[in-house]
Amino acid sequence: MHDVARVAGVSIKTVSRVVNGEPGVRASTRERVDAAIGQLRFLRNDGASQLRSGRADTIGLIVEDLANPFYSVLAAAVERVTRRHGHLLMTGSGEGLSEQEQSLAAAFLSRRAAGLLVVPTESDHAWLTQEATAGTPLVFLDRPAAGIVADTFLTDNEGGVRSGVEHLAAHGHRHIAFLGDDPAFWTAARRLDGFHTATTALGLRCDRVAMGPHDPAGLVSVLRAWTQGDDPITAILTGNNIVTVAALHAMRAADVRLGLVGFDDFELADLLEPSVTVIAQDPASMGEQAAHMLFQRLAGDTTPPRTVIQATRLVVRESGRLR
Amino acid sequence: MHDVARVAGVSIKTVSRVVNGEPGVRASTRERVDAAIGQLRFLRNDGASQLRSGRADTIGLIVEDLANPFYSVLAAAVERVTRRHGHLLMTGSGEGLSEQEQSLAAAFLSRRAAGLLVVPTESDHAWLTQEATAGTPLVFLDRPAAGIVADTFLTDNEGGVRSGVEHLAAHGHRHIAFLGDDPAFWTAARRLDGFHTATTALGLRCDRVAMGPHDPAGLVSVLRAWTQGDDPITAILTGNNIVTVAALHAMRAADVRLGLVGFDDFELADLLEPSVTVIAQDPASMGEQAAHMLFQRLAGDTTPPRTVIQATRLVVRESGRLR
Repeated sequence: MHDVARVAGVSIKTVSRVVNGEPGVRASTRERVDAAIGQLRFLRNDGASQLRSGRADTIGLIVEDLANPFYSVLAAAVERVTRRHGHLLMTGSGEGLSEQEQSLAAAFLSRRAAGLLVVPTESDHAWLTQEATAGTPLVFLDRPAAGIVADTFLTDNEGGVRSGVEHLAAHGHRHIAFLGDDPAFWTAARRLDGFHTATTALGLRCDRVAMGPHDPAGLVSVLRAWTQGDDPITAILTGNNIVTVAALHAMRAADVRLGLVGFDDFELADLLEPSVTVIAQDPASMGEQAAHMLFQRLAGDTTPPRTVIQATRLVVRESGRLR
Repeated sequence: MHDVARVAGVSIKTVSRVVNGEPGVRASTRERVDAAIGQLRFLRNDGASQLRSGRADTIGLIVEDLANPFYSVLAAAVERVTRRHGHLLMTGSGEGLSEQEQSLAAAFLSRRAAGLLVVPTESDHAWLTQEATAGTPLVFLDRPAAGIVADTFLTDNEGGVRSGVEHLAAHGHRHIAFLGDDPAFWTAARRLDGFHTATTALGLRCDRVAMGPHDPAGLVSVLRAWTQGDDPITAILTGNNIVTVAALHAMRAADVRLGLVGFDDFELADLLEPSVTVIAQDPASMGEQAAHMLFQRLAGDTTPPRTVIQATRLVVRESGRLR
């Protein structure tokens, strides 16, 4: 740990906090520590020897789609923690299908996974109660699971949207539209709620709403319609990374200039013209904390299940301005 | 399969080719079929029943970094094929460390993985010979493994770079620089070779080369130096998605305008000003084909190991022009 602290240029205490998944460490610091750990081929001795000896247990992770950057960053963080604890990670994409999620969970458990991390579908999850009662730790991420009480890690969706609406209002936007994802998704519905609450609190209209799934031509028509007439919109707030990209394409195709705040940061947001202001989540931190919680449960933590709500961060760039 | 064909708007024969991983199906068609399969909750009966019955075997996948979009798209494709065959996928990030790669492989095999898919580190892989001789299928992706003969799926790195150089030359660029990744990576070295071969064949200078790892300030200085003096460069070719993004930031910071072709496509390449011309790989297809090959081996295919080299595709946008 001395070497890791030296390479990362942080204190040993900070290294300890990162390794133990404690809160209050900045994402950039955590990344430096993780990079130092990689460089030094640091593996917690028990973890490395468990992996080598073949005594490694497994953990199962089910996300919606491993190819979506939000989930792949989350999965990479979970795998890193799992490996450090001498466990292997099994992963699967549930693709939003309850049957597929159940098949994967049953298969992981039949292979004696020591615990499950699940980004749950919108269905009832009482089918996992027996497993949880038998002592298998379950942790839910990104969305809560209906029908079962378990550790859950969520983003502050309403608060995130509120920060975006307030930012747009502060730049003089009085008529803001919301482009969300399919409201069958729990996160999409929460962000829509957040939009209604925040616009109402500020006395703004909130009658321009389109929820997904979106097709490109449809979005272009919607934006054209909303930017014409007596009371055109001057800005949009988008509900996730995929909708933001779709909206950027549609604004280009419709040749309309609108203020924009997007939910989720994305890699080239700062190189677009104008650069895109976003409500950033931290999927790496969510995955890391959730995995740490699961290993705490495996280590015998029997405190009541908790729900952790992670704040978003408004990354202010240029696109929120009145154009 | 009738329903899948109907929903995807393709023939039953095409569905069959996609499901069986046969070549000659366009990526867009494959995606439509995959989406239809998802919609219809279609699972090959044997695969679904294996998953449900708890008789599911596992496959191990080791990549460099699950959070890198190239590998996450590849991993998602592998997982989809694995699931359809009634197997579960264990995944791990080797992070470029041979020791970590060996720990993960040993742990997967000790959990009786039926086969391994590996994006290999640059070290000797003779340590896997015994396992291969014992009949465990091994498939390597993205890079070949030294010290062992096994099925291998690669991209045509030299050909890809050549198409980029020729595109820049056709737009009048006579002095092109190459920004590559760390030449310790096999793919980075192949792309550098491709750059030397292609520029020499066209009678162009190839003395402006910088290989990674790159730091932001260093890149800015390099670009400033190369764009001054008697014979400034007018374009750069970048060696992968990460270097392309770094180069875009550095050009912005150095306030230099250069032609650009990047290796690897990326999501917002078409929305930048100018939009970025790229040499696109197809990681989903690579993952899918490699996984299919592994299941063919598990089904008893004992033909000699083969190396499959996948062509790249030059996606022409605006950034190749002389500025």
